[in-house]
Amino acid sequence: MTSVEEHRARIAALLAPALLVADESDDLPLLDALGRVTSAEVLSPVDLPLFRNSQMDGFAVNSADLGTIPVELPVVGDLPAGPSSPAALIRGTAIRIMTGAVVPDGADCIVPVEDVAVENTDHGGRTVTILRGRSPGEFVRNRASDLAAGDRLLPAGLTLAPRHLAAAAAAGITTIAVRKRVRIAVISTGSELVAPGETTSSGQIFDSNLVALSAAVIEAGAELVLAERSDDEPETFGDILHRATGLADLVITSGGISEGAYEVVREVLEPLGATVGHVAMQPGGPQATALVDGVPVLSFPGNPVSTQVSFVVFARPLLLAAAGTPQVTVNALPAAGDLTSIPGKRQFLRGRVTDDGVEPVSSASSHLVAGMARADLLIDIPAETTMVRAGDNVRVWLL
Amino acid sequence: MTSVEEHRARIAALLAPALLVADESDDLPLLDALGRVTSAEVLSPVDLPLFRNSQMDGFAVNSADLGTIPVELPVVGDLPAGPSSPAALIRGTAIRIMTGAVVPDGADCIVPVEDVAVENTDHGGRTVTILRGRSPGEFVRNRASDLAAGDRLLPAGLTLAPRHLAAAAAAGITTIAVRKRVRIAVISTGSELVAPGETTSSGQIFDSNLVALSAAVIEAGAELVLAERSDDEPETFGDILHRATGLADLVITSGGISEGAYEVVREVLEPLGATVGHVAMQPGGPQATALVDGVPVLSFPGNPVSTQVSFVVFARPLLLAAAGTPQVTVNALPAAGDLTSIPGKRQFLRGRVTDDGVEPVSSASSHLVAGMARADLLIDIPAETTMVRAGDNVRVWLL
Repeated sequence: MTSVEEHRARIAALLAPALLVADESDDLPLLDALGRVTSAEVLSPVDLPLFRNSQMDGFAVNSADLGTIPVELPVVGDLPAGPSSPAALIRGTAIRIMTGAVVPDGADCIVPVEDVAVENTDHGGRTVTILRGRSPGEFVRNRASDLAAGDRLLPAGLTLAPRHLAAAAAAGITTIAVRKRVRIAVISTGSELVAPGETTSSGQIFDSNLVALSAAVIEAGAELVLAERSDDEPETFGDILHRATGLADLVITSGGISEGAYEVVREVLEPLGATVGHVAMQPGGPQATALVDGVPVLSFPGNPVSTQVSFVVFARPLLLAAAGTPQVTVNALPAAGDLTSIPGKRQFLRGRVTDDGVEPVSSASSHLVAGMARADLLIDIPAETTMVRAGDNVRVWLL
Repeated sequence: MTSVEEHRARIAALLAPALLVADESDDLPLLDALGRVTSAEVLSPVDLPLFRNSQMDGFAVNSADLGTIPVELPVVGDLPAGPSSPAALIRGTAIRIMTGAVVPDGADCIVPVEDVAVENTDHGGRTVTILRGRSPGEFVRNRASDLAAGDRLLPAGLTLAPRHLAAAAAAGITTIAVRKRVRIAVISTGSELVAPGETTSSGQIFDSNLVALSAAVIEAGAELVLAERSDDEPETFGDILHRATGLADLVITSGGISEGAYEVVREVLEPLGATVGHVAMQPGGPQATALVDGVPVLSFPGNPVSTQVSFVVFARPLLLAAAGTPQVTVNALPAAGDLTSIPGKRQFLRGRVTDDGVEPVSSASSHLVAGMARADLLIDIPAETTMVRAGDNVRVWLL
């Protein structure tokens, strides 16, 4: 029997060429790029701020005119924020200015509106009396004081949050190059399966694997390009499989790979050179890999819990790495109570955290799909371990 | 001046009726419900498993026939997984059975294929020699052993992950009731704003606030129903505002609410009864709230960093609570170096974590939109604090 780590290494090698697609980039509009990962650093095409502007509502003046305080200056203009190319400030005058407006040449500071008194003059003009001196540069935002054109605005490998998109927008950028999603097809198999919502007859069950794998693929940052159910007829499965390899970078199947009869995935994949075998783990023992039409195929066993655990152990870490997003935590936590395990197989028990440590939420049987839904984590017990004592640390994989 | 906490309380009260919409539910197909939050508990409409079935590939027998070992039994049938209504097992016989197939009445255990030897008989039949005894129930999955019809499959308030959708699918469920998204309209204002990708003339800047607020709304689990830019003409803004209140549960605006001239949001909202004032914080001092056409309006100041910080402090916690998803962590962490702060205003510095503690990544000025993009957190310095010493704990809000 193959160990879990050997099978993980085999899958990593098989998938490596296909996952390289994630190193390519898609140019996406800013809002569509939310939550995606930059494929390259983004340089600012412009200075930020674009031009020297006022930090306050107040009066643009030349600080040299504030030698004696208070000082009364005629107000010779009015600058709202917005398009404008103001003439230079004449020494000995002031211009009323709003936050964000262009600071005219000749002005070197802004006197905030709180520090002035404005009066109308007899001949229809206005004067401003300035009650407090200011130094050159005060309340002026210099061009490029945030960032200069050509400077790095965003690094490569960044998961894009609103503040990153805002900085790109401020620099006039409309699209961002993000890592491509790996395209994945999922196929569930089994003549006993019917779609949820249909009617079951005796011996039939609702297919949970197609939804489980589809959702897991999306959650891992990949793109779901096909999701279909096959019965146990090799022709049906073969047709879906070849359509899948035409669309996807990676195909994931469930069911049909154990030692019994009617094992449709094994029947179709073995003649194509698949590796079909048993991994020393529970749940999830039967496992297969293949390369079909040049596309890697991961085949998981069909018991619902086996399918889901196989995805978490074998596919998720590779897909998260390809997407450039953080791995889900694997921790060591104390066991709340004694745990027994079968010898020779690595066990992944469905568990949760309590005040006393981690504990299983259902028995080990791989059909307990509702039990899996109650779990927050997998308790990972090594193959050689048959007993874990309460308080001993165990590895847990967060779900 | 109003304190941050007073303004938060005012907004919480203003928004409470609108946010109740999140207590209503949308019925979504399983895959669309991924990442959404259940609005009610989900009961299983069926037993899981639906019927008594085999846990192994092997032979269904009656354990009473295994009194002496080895024992040879005629094989009288073959049960693949899939639709079937098998006849009862006749005592003294065995039926070949695959994992998941219906266990026939009369059989009470499964002998795994590893523990038998199968032989063809002279007259065209087959027999199985069973090499190991089994007790009643071994390798049989009883009906309802995972969950009984009417039992709780998923709790209310659960963020739906693949394993939850899988359990629902296994129970034949096709849609799940999830909390409704709060519908939000965002409006950025300012005659100086142009859309990213357009051409700026002197005095114009690229609008980052519309993208910042749009993305923040989506990230907080709400639905973006309108995102438009207004110049400083009251007619333009008023038109957009009334369209927004017709679509949204909540309207968020940026810009146009300070003491200066050309403050379009204030000009339009004050006659409608808005509360316009100053909150003792930096960035983000000018703040307004209103109820227009019965819809709450939150008006944030227009400096890009002020807009973004206002959303994090005033809107995000309420929206996450309405969505039913966890709050973003607010921690106490040591300052990496001394920090000074102006008296009387609560400061939200843009910062990051280093090995020595948290440190600012840019100066305090609210136009530093690229500086904001470099931050991972806000360092929250109380209004009365003017000095934080290196090593002192400060509150940080993760972005």
